[in-house]
Amino acid sequence: MSLISFLGPKGTFTHEVANMLGDDLIPYCTIPAVMESVANGESTYGIVPIENSIEGPVGVTLDSLAHKYDLKIYKEIIISINQNLIVNPGTRMEDIEDVYSHAQAIAQCQEFISKNKIQPHYAISTANAAKNIVGYRNKAAIGNSKAAELYNLEILVSNIQDNDNNETRFVVLSKDDHEPTGCDKTSIIFSIYEDRPGGLYKILGIFQKENINLTKIESRPSKKGLGKYLFFVDFNGHRDDEVIKNIIEEIKSNTYFLKVLGSYPEFR
Amino acid sequence: MSLISFLGPKGTFTHEVANMLGDDLIPYCTIPAVMESVANGESTYGIVPIENSIEGPVGVTLDSLAHKYDLKIYKEIIISINQNLIVNPGTRMEDIEDVYSHAQAIAQCQEFISKNKIQPHYAISTANAAKNIVGYRNKAAIGNSKAAELYNLEILVSNIQDNDNNETRFVVLSKDDHEPTGCDKTSIIFSIYEDRPGGLYKILGIFQKENINLTKIESRPSKKGLGKYLFFVDFNGHRDDEVIKNIIEEIKSNTYFLKVLGSYPEFR
Repeated sequence: MSLISFLGPKGTFTHEVANMLGDDLIPYCTIPAVMESVANGESTYGIVPIENSIEGPVGVTLDSLAHKYDLKIYKEIIISINQNLIVNPGTRMEDIEDVYSHAQAIAQCQEFISKNKIQPHYAISTANAAKNIVGYRNKAAIGNSKAAELYNLEILVSNIQDNDNNETRFVVLSKDDHEPTGCDKTSIIFSIYEDRPGGLYKILGIFQKENINLTKIESRPSKKGLGKYLFFVDFNGHRDDEVIKNIIEEIKSNTYFLKVLGSYPEFR
Repeated sequence: MSLISFLGPKGTFTHEVANMLGDDLIPYCTIPAVMESVANGESTYGIVPIENSIEGPVGVTLDSLAHKYDLKIYKEIIISINQNLIVNPGTRMEDIEDVYSHAQAIAQCQEFISKNKIQPHYAISTANAAKNIVGYRNKAAIGNSKAAELYNLEILVSNIQDNDNNETRFVVLSKDDHEPTGCDKTSIIFSIYEDRPGGLYKILGIFQKENINLTKIESRPSKKGLGKYLFFVDFNGHRDDEVIKNIIEEIKSNTYFLKVLGSYPEFR
């Protein structure tokens, strides 16, 4: 039986994803702690969010994969994010003065919050926010229905996010990536030489030449100064495919840092 | 005399930058409020942070420039960010249980915080964090020396950021951008057609052909779904230069969205 660690506590969106994969679940309270548990063998798989369609990349996930842990992406899972206004039973909209949630959830519901003139406060997770408001009539939390259920709270308003295209992509990390399935994606990170103009153009040309489709390109500061970037690129194909192998070799010889985060089945 | 609005309250890093530019300063408590004040003519210039070398882009600045306000970048200013542990006079390290700061400052000092086993809490700004701890022996704030001064607090430990390459780039926004100086940069935002593979490659090729150096490339979610991006690109040259004019025209005909954020002197 495989142990699965996830970004907890119970009742988070990551918990919802973990439930889809197995029963032997352990929550950890930070993203690096989930990764650490896979790295040291306490768990076989670890689930963390990697990007949201509204708020963008989850910086700590990308930075930890780039700089701290040698883990592989074994699987990707994409779910729709529906945020709800969670309250104690009997609370009415006009009672609410303060609302608590994770910074990303607050950012996703900015219009709702300002329209209703309630004061936002940051919590370490959506589930923790729900836990914090138990017993307070003038406080609300923002989170998923699981969080409301867990703490015997009610959903006063559902789907309060500003934008309906709200999806989060999660990755299942492990020590090894996934064998080829015929419909795979590969994720890599690289840094280009800053003293060679057109470096990124050259790398993109390698994919273009082989007609390989990029599904994501994201830049992150390399932490070495402004204007110095790491690029996170996802593309179709498995690193065991002959054409992908050659692409990776060619990128390696044109970058000063390259890390293959792994190949895994495309989510559908 | 020109009124300058900035991301306040007083004592923030943005205030430090505003002080370099003039005396007639008005603080606003959010980045969109600063932009709104320039858009509606309450102030002539507005100063906001746009990117940090460790934590990356300031999402709300980029998103507001892309989707909400038609403002131009008139100037850029880059300063080194030194974070300090700020306490009430007489507080010792072992007294501190909680530390307050802006989310970016907390993120920049993660190693210091976890090494000293203090509990981080988010505040809306570094200056607000300093204000909040006045009178509490067991609380500290993270911020600049100005914030400590303003509230009669002391710096217990200086330069507590994880990484010494910590710089923030600020932009001065106005209704018009800057006339050419001979050493300028231009900022643009664009979206590529998703159904045309190699779209970004083609755009980068336009710069490459004219040997124009990109000083920044940043992707942000377009808020239309995962894998759909806006690209923020900065490059050398002024939009009044003949070669840059042609480049912008060529990009326009290869993208479905293009916004020129303006041309301004390169900071040195």
